[in-house]
Amino acid sequence: MAPTKKVGILGATGTVGQRFILLLADHPVFTIHALGASSRSAGKSYEKAVKWKQARPIPDHIASMVVKPCVSAEFAECDVVFSGLDSDVAGDIEMEFLKANLVVFSNAKNYRREPTVPLIVPTVNTSHFDLIPHQRSVYGQSKGFLITNANCSTTGLVVPLKALQDAFGPLKAVMVHTQQAISGAGYPGVPSLDILDNIVPYISGEEEKMEWETAKILGGSDGKQFLPLQDTTVSATCTRVPVIDGHLESVSVKFANAAPSIEEVYQALDKYTSEAQALNCHSAPTKAILINRNEDRPQPRLDRELDKGQTVTVGRVRPCPVFDIKFVLLIHNTVLGAAGSSVLNAEVAVAKGLI
Amino acid sequence: MAPTKKVGILGATGTVGQRFILLLADHPVFTIHALGASSRSAGKSYEKAVKWKQARPIPDHIASMVVKPCVSAEFAECDVVFSGLDSDVAGDIEMEFLKANLVVFSNAKNYRREPTVPLIVPTVNTSHFDLIPHQRSVYGQSKGFLITNANCSTTGLVVPLKALQDAFGPLKAVMVHTQQAISGAGYPGVPSLDILDNIVPYISGEEEKMEWETAKILGGSDGKQFLPLQDTTVSATCTRVPVIDGHLESVSVKFANAAPSIEEVYQALDKYTSEAQALNCHSAPTKAILINRNEDRPQPRLDRELDKGQTVTVGRVRPCPVFDIKFVLLIHNTVLGAAGSSVLNAEVAVAKGLI
Amino acid sequence: MAPTKKVGILGATGTVGQRFILLLADHPVFTIHALGASSRSAGKSYEKAVKWKQARPIPDHIASMVVKPCVSAEFAECDVVFSGLDSDVAGDIEMEFLKANLVVFSNAKNYRREPTVPLIVPTVNTSHFDLIPHQRSVYGQSKGFLITNANCSTTGLVVPLKALQDAFGPLKAVMVHTQQAISGAGYPGVPSLDILDNIVPYISGEEEKMEWETAKILGGSDGKQFLPLQDTTVSATCTRVPVIDGHLESVSVKFANAAPSIEEVYQALDKYTSEAQALNCHSAPTKAILINRNEDRPQPRLDRELDKGQTVTVGRVRPCPVFDIKFVLLIHNTVLGAAGSSVLNAEVAVAKGLI
Amino acid sequence: MAPTKKVGILGATGTVGQRFILLLADHPVFTIHALGASSRSAGKSYEKAVKWKQARPIPDHIASMVVKPCVSAEFAECDVVFSGLDSDVAGDIEMEFLKANLVVFSNAKNYRREPTVPLIVPTVNTSHFDLIPHQRSVYGQSKGFLITNANCSTTGLVVPLKALQDAFGPLKAVMVHTQQAISGAGYPGVPSLDILDNIVPYISGEEEKMEWETAKILGGSDGKQFLPLQDTTVSATCTRVPVIDGHLESVSVKFANAAPSIEEVYQALDKYTSEAQALNCHSAPTKAILINRNEDRPQPRLDRELDKGQTVTVGRVRPCPVFDIKFVLLIHNTVLGAAGSSVLNAEVAVAKGLI
Repeated sequence: MAPTKKVGILGATGTVGQRFILLLADHPVFTIHALGASSRSAGKSYEKAVKWKQARPIPDHIASMVVKPCVSAEFAECDVVFSGLDSDVAGDIEMEFLKANLVVFSNAKNYRREPTVPLIVPTVNTSHFDLIPHQRSVYGQSKGFLITNANCSTTGLVVPLKALQDAFGPLKAVMVHTQQAISGAGYPGVPSLDILDNIVPYISGEEEKMEWETAKILGGSDGKQFLPLQDTTVSATCTRVPVIDGHLESVSVKFANAAPSIEEVYQALDKYTSEAQALNCHSAPTKAILINRNEDRPQPRLDRELDKGQTVTVGRVRPCPVFDIKFVLLIHNTVLGAAGSSVLNAEVAVAKGLI
Repeated sequence: MAPTKKVGILGATGTVGQRFILLLADHPVFTIHALGASSRSAGKSYEKAVKWKQARPIPDHIASMVVKPCVSAEFAECDVVFSGLDSDVAGDIEMEFLKANLVVFSNAKNYRREPTVPLIVPTVNTSHFDLIPHQRSVYGQSKGFLITNANCSTTGLVVPLKALQDAFGPLKAVMVHTQQAISGAGYPGVPSLDILDNIVPYISGEEEKMEWETAKILGGSDGKQFLPLQDTTVSATCTRVPVIDGHLESVSVKFANAAPSIEEVYQALDKYTSEAQALNCHSAPTKAILINRNEDRPQPRLDRELDKGQTVTVGRVRPCPVFDIKFVLLIHNTVLGAAGSSVLNAEVAVAKGLI
Repeated sequence: MAPTKKVGILGATGTVGQRFILLLADHPVFTIHALGASSRSAGKSYEKAVKWKQARPIPDHIASMVVKPCVSAEFAECDVVFSGLDSDVAGDIEMEFLKANLVVFSNAKNYRREPTVPLIVPTVNTSHFDLIPHQRSVYGQSKGFLITNANCSTTGLVVPLKALQDAFGPLKAVMVHTQQAISGAGYPGVPSLDILDNIVPYISGEEEKMEWETAKILGGSDGKQFLPLQDTTVSATCTRVPVIDGHLESVSVKFANAAPSIEEVYQALDKYTSEAQALNCHSAPTKAILINRNEDRPQPRLDRELDKGQTVTVGRVRPCPVFDIKFVLLIHNTVLGAAGSSVLNAEVAVAKGLI
Repeated sequence: MAPTKKVGILGATGTVGQRFILLLADHPVFTIHALGASSRSAGKSYEKAVKWKQARPIPDHIASMVVKPCVSAEFAECDVVFSGLDSDVAGDIEMEFLKANLVVFSNAKNYRREPTVPLIVPTVNTSHFDLIPHQRSVYGQSKGFLITNANCSTTGLVVPLKALQDAFGPLKAVMVHTQQAISGAGYPGVPSLDILDNIVPYISGEEEKMEWETAKILGGSDGKQFLPLQDTTVSATCTRVPVIDGHLESVSVKFANAAPSIEEVYQALDKYTSEAQALNCHSAPTKAILINRNEDRPQPRLDRELDKGQTVTVGRVRPCPVFDIKFVLLIHNTVLGAAGSSVLNAEVAVAKGLI
């Protein structure tokens, strides 16, 4: 079966853009049709324009593609446009694409808080696609729309929280501490002098993002507006660690209702499944949540590549002396935590007939 | 002024023992008189017996000292014995020394829970030395006694918690997440394959230690028994990170009373001072708590050596959406977190006339 | 096509053994039939016996296999036995297997210098299989034989040296400096305190191995004995670096004859091909030598996984002010540098009808 | 004794400038009088202008100094000016300072090849100060002059080479391989994504510098011109490794005359001493070369801080199968390899009465 949907990639030379290329180079539904980057890169072959930093080489048929400027006219033939743009330029460019009636899946943070733009983690809240007709009417588009995916750390967090909320009712409080990989900062990103034999206990804007994004993603929607959680408080501390890929998060949870047992938590996490899986999407993980019961897992280097990097691995579920339970999770920050979310979101949209 | 107190070091070839040697090699009060290690090392020169892993070389006058077996008869002339023994042997050896009427300051965990053994962090609870007369009577000793210092991570935590408790009354709940350096696991310790490009979210027994040690240290004493905190709950998550020295801890605190402002917290931490400082002990830090208001500090590589490694650096004090406040602290795990605590405890004991 | 040859793996729980399992778990010719390890592991399921340290999980059908002791009677049904044993036990065990008429491909160093045992790098000197009839006669075996593969660093070195020797005649002198990954030392292997923020400029026995193995591998054979190079001197310096996988080597070469141009060297390396490739062996790389002309390549993290880890990447070919040319190479030390060599050697032996 | 010479530091906010400040903040001869940096920093307090990346804090009396622009008028009162400027601006600024009759000690590469500018490693060729009268006459200065120090890697190499040349006569060939710390690239310098779990086998321009600088430094001078070595060929390979500080170099040497024994080499290195030591300069090392006979030393993390970072540690002297001998050396790249050389050079100049 040949791919049927033409896709474009904005910010194709960046770290997230490179991941889009690896995920889409050999995809059953999408075929890479256009690559966009800054005016400095436009006109060059992709191979010349990019500082490729992936452990797999540039796919042959992509290397020679000529990079285009990020204007909608150059992407008019694309059924889907993926954006890995930096936030300083994503705002204007993505809006121009949306207003040109294009379908945009963005990894940038710019429109995540927008009242008509869904913020979707593909194994959590694909129900929020229901707001697209309303979004189209607001922006006066017939087929274009704009979907954002969440911050990498938020994405890892909300998958098990959704499973717990579904199984045991509302969460009263969540305390989360992240240890985030350097690839999350892009390239050149974190200077090595800052992170070798070191930890940086601060990532600009990250803690706030985790705190409010969680409420929007785990909340409902009535087709016209989102209904963020009101009664779940989240407190986040975010740190940068000397790890290439894979964010580790330590989470404590207090339930609004009576707390489940540790075993009930394990079972609820294990049996959790998402619409993306039910729709048999190509990039959907086999398990939305992978349980590892070894006492010292998950670990970034050993677990980040599991299930195509689209799962969240959870371990060390145990009682919390202060809240009810605590556990550790791992998410591949540049796959499910970034480009992989966008791609899987787009696959769901295709399966739902939105594209 | 020549040093006046002869000291012995048990477990002198281990990681903690090496730190004891660096801290004591040129000390105004203590002079190294005897080194003890396992029977495999006994009889060898220290230089031959040790795998020295410090960035400063073995002090010349120590290199040629002959290592002794860890029996009290060999240490009879010592005014103070420091123990850096592993817990699998520390129990029997330290008790044999105590019963030989020797003064022992131990870094091992074995007797920390013992009802008559003080668990002292030198910039926090030197008031617990008051229990020594009772301990002597229990063990029938005239001058010998046994003091333990706390786990490295606990030590970092209780210094600012004591300052907060003193200033704002009892703490209702504490959530702490540690990122612990590899030197805390000794040598050979953590295999490099486990920690390069990786985090291990588990350290055996560490979380429990932080949870109960905090209650004993921050609680009172009536001269006959300790009165651990009853109403402060602590929840700890401990992880191992690829950092040589320096444990970083992220802490959220809920006060029993009305919460202070962020600025009040900063000021309470900044003005906090301890008996060890008041007694002008040689190894006491200038500041028990060092405030760093840069948004991305403290950091292990940049801050661990400050104030001789005997301070705790605190930064990022900010509101916690779930509790009252949260902050980040750094402790040098092998100085204040281990050997440095024992040495400073012994200096306090000398200043108090107990030795 | 179902696999037709049953294989056993000795030392199956070690680092090399784990790689054997990943390479053989889904192989078109070989099927894993028996796993052997120390008496401590024997009788346990593989999953229980192993400390699995690979980024891919244990294959499902292997996890439940029961580990056997390393005695030939337990491996009698195996067509091929791969040995990832440590050298302290490999000598006796492999000889017992050979004398039981079994076919053994060993990664251990014990028999590499043996006059009747071929030391084969699969993309270099598979011609040395010609000595097997003679070896069988010496050991009185009808079908069993023993093949060793080379040290990981030697393996990386000899592939381009063979290409240069074939193209430009004998090499007069070779100076090589290695930067070797920690996985080469097994598990627990290198303590993290020795290698974080550090380099260890010494690996026991490694320099000597590189110096003499090169001569045996690049030399000829007359079917009765090997004819090691006499006039090529090799000087090696070996260091351990904080890299997970992938040995980097810097090489300077002086030719016996007139030196080729840099471009001639690139072309000779690029067009070099081996018998393993000609025989279409499953694990053979597409290119025995992969040229990367970027000025800062090869690099371990970016290039080690190329071509299934069975190629040697070469870059930075340039004039040497002292010798003729110098260049940099990269080899995946646990694939082509260890288990991958054994597996490909065995595939060649099957293709040649020796098994 | 109060310091008597006022000094300025150009490029004071950079990595080398920060080292100058640590070395000079508490110096018996020099007192920091002026700090210069780019126009972006000029006018700010040093504390505000700098991104301080050292493990020791900014000295208190420096923190509040106001940064000046790098023009000679602002440094007119300085007896000595140290330059840690980047090479893209060092050329014009240093020349302007020289022509203003100021004394400049530069760490930049711009004038190292200049026929009238000495390139001095303080424990090697302070005899080259003899060319200063000639330099002054060429530039028409009465008291100003310009001295450069060498590249960090060259500096480490030439110290033992000088000892060998002095003891055993001319060197015929030198092959050197470096493993260079990230601090050598400044800040932000090497991106962490390039160097975690990785080696970069290329540093722009570095190999060429090592090859020609060695000839100038180890050559003579007749007071009017330098007489670089003609018959010593040097071949260098330079790599970047994940180490904070400390360059490790593996060296093979062929002597023009009969080769000494390994023991003779050790003794020649051990007894080597320099004019900087004879003059009792404050920053001179106790030993210009420190021998470490442990088989796995020197190592960056364990040996870089020895003797104030101003020594070169040498180990593993052994026969080279291709040349005569080989050995491993370690230099602290930002102390003796950069700012420490400049400071010690200036101390020598003061002792010689040139300032």
